[in-house]
Amino acid sequence: MDIDQALKVVNGKLVGPRYEHTIRVLDTARELAQRFDADVKKAEIAAVFHDYAKLLSIDELKENMNDAREDSRLLCYHPELWHGPVAARIVSDTFAIHNKDILNAIRYHTTGRANMTLLEKVIYVADYIEPGRSFPGVEEVRELACYDLNKALLKALGNTIAFLVAKDALVFPDTFEAYNYLIFEREEK
Amino acid sequence: MDIDQALKVVNGKLVGPRYEHTIRVLDTARELAQRFDADVKKAEIAAVFHDYAKLLSIDELKENMNDAREDSRLLCYHPELWHGPVAARIVSDTFAIHNKDILNAIRYHTTGRANMTLLEKVIYVADYIEPGRSFPGVEEVRELACYDLNKALLKALGNTIAFLVAKDALVFPDTFEAYNYLIFEREEK
Repeated sequence: MDIDQALKVVNGKLVGPRYEHTIRVLDTARELAQRFDADVKKAEIAAVFHDYAKLLSIDELKENMNDAREDSRLLCYHPELWHGPVAARIVSDTFAIHNKDILNAIRYHTTGRANMTLLEKVIYVADYIEPGRSFPGVEEVRELACYDLNKALLKALGNTIAFLVAKDALVFPDTFEAYNYLIFEREEK
Repeated sequence: MDIDQALKVVNGKLVGPRYEHTIRVLDTARELAQRFDADVKKAEIAAVFHDYAKLLSIDELKENMNDAREDSRLLCYHPELWHGPVAARIVSDTFAIHNKDILNAIRYHTTGRANMTLLEKVIYVADYIEPGRSFPGVEEVRELACYDLNKALLKALGNTIAFLVAKDALVFPDTFEAYNYLIFEREEK
């Protein structure tokens, strides 16, 4: 599937602000992929589909999680995390997109995980810094993303953890692991 | 070993500010144990010995960690975390204190862990809020500790995670797990 077909499909599914967000993530992911030598075409497809399941209801998401036997730990955490794995599954089943790296970039854009691929990092950070985002700390991540994708990702994960911890909310273990992994990797260099 | 003997032993090992801190943790642990129906005598012994290995050098701590085959994951994290398990081991070997709950309260006072016992919570929180502590957030934990030990512990763990994340530092997984566990437990009630 090329990018024009993908945009057409997604435009039929996501409406208004969610489609506009998708376009901004697409533009940002393209830029980051070029800057950090990731595969631009894969980044485009992953970006366009990353929120494909975002407008499903909690019940629909849960049904999809169960049907596809997704990581059952996720069901104990915030439903906001579920649309990544569900989108990856739907995109694979419905549009015959089977490239693992694209699917994992969609799957892990909500949680991160240890040892993320370059493409996963590009999509996670693009989703975090796209120009419509205005939460505290985003500007620092944008600046880091101008020259160091790992530093940008680490700060984005750290901000997410700090945000959740400040309100006594659960943090999915993969997010902690993504965070710690980047620090270990940095220290090994 | 009674509390007077324990104090004598520790007074010979820990000097100046570290001994004064120990006395403040002892007083605070005693108060918390009374308030939340923990075993006061066990809390006293655990409090007195919690920092028994604090003044060992990093090399000595590492040697002890290796000799005792302590959780090897800890060696990849900050040495500040090592004195808890090492103290538990020394106290068990040297002073024939074999009560598991006392030893675990000493062992986990640096990291916390999922499903902490009442005594472990008392020592962790006492160490965090003893009156000599003045870091940001401690006052809120002190207030929570007046009526809810779990809330105080959750806030203390959250503050610790936030403090580490703000400086891009590693967080030991058991600390994350202790934090998430308390939230799960709260949500089940």
